[in-house]
Amino acid sequence: MIAVILVTNDDGIHSIGLRFLYDAVKELDEVYVVAPESPRSATGLSLTLHKPLRIYKVNLYGEKFYSVSGTPSDVIHLAITKILPRKPDIVLSGINLGDNTSIQVILSSGTCGAAIQASLLGIRALAFSTVIDDPEDFTPAYVEKMKRIIEIMVKHVFEKGFPRGVDVLNINFPRSLEKVKTRITRPARIRFKEAVEERIDPRGKKYYWIHGDTVENVEKDTDIYAVFVENAISITPIALNLYPIVGFDWVQNLRDLERKIFELF
Amino acid sequence: MIAVILVTNDDGIHSIGLRFLYDAVKELDEVYVVAPESPRSATGLSLTLHKPLRIYKVNLYGEKFYSVSGTPSDVIHLAITKILPRKPDIVLSGINLGDNTSIQVILSSGTCGAAIQASLLGIRALAFSTVIDDPEDFTPAYVEKMKRIIEIMVKHVFEKGFPRGVDVLNINFPRSLEKVKTRITRPARIRFKEAVEERIDPRGKKYYWIHGDTVENVEKDTDIYAVFVENAISITPIALNLYPIVGFDWVQNLRDLERKIFELF
Repeated sequence: MIAVILVTNDDGIHSIGLRFLYDAVKELDEVYVVAPESPRSATGLSLTLHKPLRIYKVNLYGEKFYSVSGTPSDVIHLAITKILPRKPDIVLSGINLGDNTSIQVILSSGTCGAAIQASLLGIRALAFSTVIDDPEDFTPAYVEKMKRIIEIMVKHVFEKGFPRGVDVLNINFPRSLEKVKTRITRPARIRFKEAVEERIDPRGKKYYWIHGDTVENVEKDTDIYAVFVENAISITPIALNLYPIVGFDWVQNLRDLERKIFELF
Repeated sequence: MIAVILVTNDDGIHSIGLRFLYDAVKELDEVYVVAPESPRSATGLSLTLHKPLRIYKVNLYGEKFYSVSGTPSDVIHLAITKILPRKPDIVLSGINLGDNTSIQVILSSGTCGAAIQASLLGIRALAFSTVIDDPEDFTPAYVEKMKRIIEIMVKHVFEKGFPRGVDVLNINFPRSLEKVKTRITRPARIRFKEAVEERIDPRGKKYYWIHGDTVENVEKDTDIYAVFVENAISITPIALNLYPIVGFDWVQNLRDLERKIFELF
C-alpha cells in the first residue's frame, strides 16, 4: 500500500524550512503539502471556529501543494477531510526556523501544535525544528544532512512503527551537524524566565519587552541541554495524557476538597 | 503572612466571568486582577516576543486592576515582574464562558494557558470555566454557588497545599448547579472531530467551516463526561511533564533509530 504523507508547518507555505522537509521525503510515496498561507508562529493548537476558511491550490516546487487561511491545527482538519484522499499515515511538521525546546515553548508552538493535533486525531506525528533561525545561515552540507536524517526517521517509523506510549516525536537540530550526535531527551520545563525590560517611549510613557531570557543551569537530559550545550540532535518523545502519576497523595487531597464542597450545600 | 492572589483570564478585563472570579476571592488577602485588554481566546501559552507591550491601570469594580496589551501568558510575566509586589501565592484564571475540557481544548485555551504558564514558573494555578457561554444565561443562584465553591477551593489549597505531583487544577462547572456534584476526572483526548462543512460563497467559490462537532462515546472518567453527561463539576488534575511512561518499548525503538542515524555518517 502506498503511504500518504502530510507535510505542514507554522511558518507558512513559503518557508524554506517547509521546502527542506518536503525535499527530504518527496521520494517516499504520496506526499501532500498543506500549510498556512501566512506565518502562524506560536499559535499552539488553536482552531478557527468563528470564521470560515479557504483552501488554495498553489503552484510551487511540487505537485500537491495547498495553502489554508488558518492555523496549523486548522490545516490538519482541512487536509484530512477535504484535501487528502484519506487520513495520512504520518504528519511531518516543520522544519521550523528556530528551536522548539521546553514544555513552555512546545505547548505554544504551531509546529508542535500541528503534530499534537494530528496525534490527538490518531495520526503518527513528528515535529522538526532547527536552532538556525535565519535562512541565510544554512549551508548546503547542513541542509543535506538534515534531510538525510529526516528521511531515516520517517522510514524508521514506517518500518518499526511509532514508539509505543509516545504521541509525538519532537526533533530539534543543533547549530552544527558537522559531527552528528543524537540524544533522547525529555522536554525542559521552561525556556524563558520572567524577563521583562521596561522602556520609555518618545512621549514619556512606559512600555515593556518580554525578551525571553533563556534559563541557565538546565538539566542534562533535557532538549535544551542537548541542542545548546551538547550540540546534539534532540529526539524528544512526547506523551499527551496530562494526568499525574497515581501514587502521590493528590488523590486524597482532592477527595478532601470534594468532601468540603459536598458539606457546603 | 498575607497571601498575594493573581486573578486573570483570556476573555479580557471586561468579561463578566472575571468579575465572578474576583468576587469569589476578593475577601481573601491581597487580590490583583491583571487581564488582557481584549479577548484572547484560544491563544494557549503564546508569548508576545516580537512587539512591545503596555500595562494600563483600570478603574473597575475593584482596586488593583490592570490590563495588558497581550496574551494571558504575557499577563503572567508582566504581572509577576512589573505589577505585583512579589510572586503571587496562587494564580486563578477564568471564569471562562464556555468549557475547557479535553486535552485538545486545554492545550489551546488561553484560560488554561495562563494557569499552565504560571505553573511552569513555579506558581500554584487553577483554571475555571463554565459550560454557560452566554452572560444572559447565568442565574444569581448559579453564580452564588460557583463563587462559594471557588472560595472553598482556594482556601483548601492554602490550607492543605497544592496536591503533590499536580501542576494545574482545571475546573469546569456544568450547566446546572442545583444539585452540586463533583468528579475527579482526567482530560478526554479530543473534543472536536475532524468536522468540516463545505459551503459555496455568492461568487461561486468554496469555503469551509470547522464546526467543532463534539465527539460521542466519551469515556466515563473524563472531564467531558462529568460536565456534559453527569452534570457534575469536573476537577481535573493536570501534570505537565509530557514524558512517556518508561517501561514501554519506546526506548528500544528510539535507540534503534539513533543507531541508524549514527551508521549513516
